Amino acid sequence: MNPWLNQLRGRFLVFDGPDGSGKSTQFRRFSEAATRQGIPVCEVREPGGTMVGEAIRKVLLEYQDDAHGEMDLRCEMLLFMASRAQLVAERIRPALQAGQLVLADRFISSTLAYQGAAGGIPISDILRVGQVALGQTWPDLVVVFDVDERTAAMRLNPLLDRMESKGAAYHAKVRQGYLDQAKNDPQHYLVVPSHMDADTVFADLMAKLAARFA
Amino acid sequence: MNPWLNQLRGRFLVFDGPDGSGKSTQFRRFSEAATRQGIPVCEVREPGGTMVGEAIRKVLLEYQDDAHGEMDLRCEMLLFMASRAQLVAERIRPALQAGQLVLADRFISSTLAYQGAAGGIPISDILRVGQVALGQTWPDLVVVFDVDERTAAMRLNPLLDRMESKGAAYHAKVRQGYLDQAKNDPQHYLVVPSHMDADTVFADLMAKLAARFA
Repeated sequence: MNPWLNQLRGRFLVFDGPDGSGKSTQFRRFSEAATRQGIPVCEVREPGGTMVGEAIRKVLLEYQDDAHGEMDLRCEMLLFMASRAQLVAERIRPALQAGQLVLADRFISSTLAYQGAAGGIPISDILRVGQVALGQTWPDLVVVFDVDERTAAMRLNPLLDRMESKGAAYHAKVRQGYLDQAKNDPQHYLVVPSHMDADTVFADLMAKLAARFA
Repeated sequence: MNPWLNQLRGRFLVFDGPDGSGKSTQFRRFSEAATRQGIPVCEVREPGGTMVGEAIRKVLLEYQDDAHGEMDLRCEMLLFMASRAQLVAERIRPALQAGQLVLADRFISSTLAYQGAAGGIPISDILRVGQVALGQTWPDLVVVFDVDERTAAMRLNPLLDRMESKGAAYHAKVRQGYLDQAKNDPQHYLVVPSHMDADTVFADLMAKLAARFA
């Protein structure tokens, strides 16, 4: 049905984008499509995805965006990187070596957008730490689901909405952070507009991936 | 009594060395001496020293050196750096700005010796992450308490002895890691032999510091 999907064995794809971009819905649909095609899929989600990563995730949940402003932004960034180093060593690298398609919901692109473009840590600093944390294991392709702030806000549960509490300006910086990454590295990024309904976005995603990998 | 101690206001000193080097005893004695001299001292200990750092420390205690080998060494290194970034932002930098003497029991020199020289992460990788984690806040002086493996082992509680379980070869690499740091950066390092009794080591420490700062 989608023979180009076979090109994805042993590849590393990241689905990323602002909160409310619908990336997780697309992630699920794409993973199902690949599985139906007989591709072995290794799904990972950040932060977490390993026992160590789950423990780090709890620290982030407790102190990140804390009302007392307790967590320093560089500490936060390094915690995401620590969890990511563990995920790469324990799950991603072995899965790639076994010829599986690795699908990640968020990866270093999230850190570049949130702690970098929006938070203010220089992109070069994040990339420098990333080189140490990831070694040679960088994504083959990062799919960025791009959505305007208004649509994103409508899709989000306000109680869980980190963006809302930080305001529209913050969300705009996150979005621009993703778009700048894609602009600066078009070989490894693919932008999929995602303000439409999920069926339309998925059809666009599949067409764009087919054009890349066919 | 020791007027040169006044030179240490607003400076950042690290006491470091292998487990069993007696550094914590010397740390306490030196801190008391500075306090008696009227110097405001800010003591910090790694990992931990902040609420966020204590939470990270718990993750390290649970998974580091785990029998199942669950924690990747780069993840471990990044966790130490995350805790350190928090310590710098929350305690060290403000204390230095207030003119206090900051005394740290372990710092990045420990990571360079344990995860670097002994663990195998390239020193350049650890320094690269350190530059991002610490910014401009590097120690003015790192005092390395140097001890042979035999003396160190005798001083340690075998139940708590991480070195013993990793063997003499590992301990030797840690020790050499500290000595190499000192050799490569004599301006920022001071080696104090510490196989003798605590009084003798302390007298030597004070004499060497006086020679530096007088």
